[in-house]
Amino acid sequence: MPLVRISLGTQDPEYAAAVGDAVHTALVESMNVPADDKFQILTGPGSSKIVYPPEYLGIRHTDAIVIIQITLNAGRTLEQKRALYARIAELLSTAPGIPPADIIVSLVEVVKENWSFGDGIAQYAG
Amino acid sequence: MPLVRISLGTQDPEYAAAVGDAVHTALVESMNVPADDKFQILTGPGSSKIVYPPEYLGIRHTDAIVIIQITLNAGRTLEQKRALYARIAELLSTAPGIPPADIIVSLVEVVKENWSFGDGIAQYAG
Amino acid sequence: MPLVRISLGTQDPEYAAAVGDAVHTALVESMNVPADDKFQILTGPGSSKIVYPPEYLGIRHTDAIVIIQITLNAGRTLEQKRALYARIAELLSTAPGIPPADIIVSLVEVVKENWSFGDGIAQYAG
Repeated sequence: MPLVRISLGTQDPEYAAAVGDAVHTALVESMNVPADDKFQILTGPGSSKIVYPPEYLGIRHTDAIVIIQITLNAGRTLEQKRALYARIAELLSTAPGIPPADIIVSLVEVVKENWSFGDGIAQYAG
Repeated sequence: MPLVRISLGTQDPEYAAAVGDAVHTALVESMNVPADDKFQILTGPGSSKIVYPPEYLGIRHTDAIVIIQITLNAGRTLEQKRALYARIAELLSTAPGIPPADIIVSLVEVVKENWSFGDGIAQYAG
Repeated sequence: MPLVRISLGTQDPEYAAAVGDAVHTALVESMNVPADDKFQILTGPGSSKIVYPPEYLGIRHTDAIVIIQITLNAGRTLEQKRALYARIAELLSTAPGIPPADIIVSLVEVVKENWSFGDGIAQYAG
């Protein structure tokens, strides 16, 4: 059920796939997302531009910045959210090697009936 | 008021327009959206890539997959949401001919005061 | 904390930057957003197309239309939202010179713990 939008500063498909894989692994490990519930939109710089401040909250950013916005069901605890942010940073800093300072995450929570995963049905409702 | 983001695996403008038209018709029919309240962002594969699982919840997906994320006012009933999902699938499977299994819908609900439709005014507030 | 997605009908980088700057200034002035809290994704028409009605709610639109979707923390008052819409329209009509009728704004509100601004930490939580 998460729908993950990832904005990247590169068009490299292997790099993008590595980022998508890492975010999905973190969702599976930290928030009990099913392994085959992987829906992502990866956007490179072709017609999009990421604007970011050189520093915010004492954290310095570079052109390696990645913005990850995840629409997901409400109900996760603060501890699960903290675990997700930490695990995404850990995995992405390992591969493809993004500085943890450059990993921005935004969660948008919705109710379960707000999804259809095909066939015109609200699979999670009721 | 709905803002509709549609991600497609093709850049064909006629195909994209057909998808946008069908989604709008379903919103008008199922959720009382005004006919001239049609604001959409249609994105093809130029610099974006859709990642999807081969199968989730027993539904198999193909490269024809389309992801439709709709920001709209809160307050629709579950029955209205179910009708929307069903009607989108029905219309898109007719034209441009997308398999119902490949139609993913995500709703994000907001309050009425969260919109400005021009002129710097919150048209729906109070 | 706001994450600002701006969809434009032009790929001109100076025009896009001017729009982004104006929206950020309006957020700082109307909603107490910190000056260095500027995270934006600016998207031109390369692989995206904006669909809009010729007229909605008595307001006529043109190809100069810009759609601004802002994810931000909940808690702003209606007066702050009204001030934001008005200030965005005022600034964008001055530079780069967008007709106020063509400025569409959508707000998506989230809770504070739904953000990580780098280093794998939920900076706004608790």
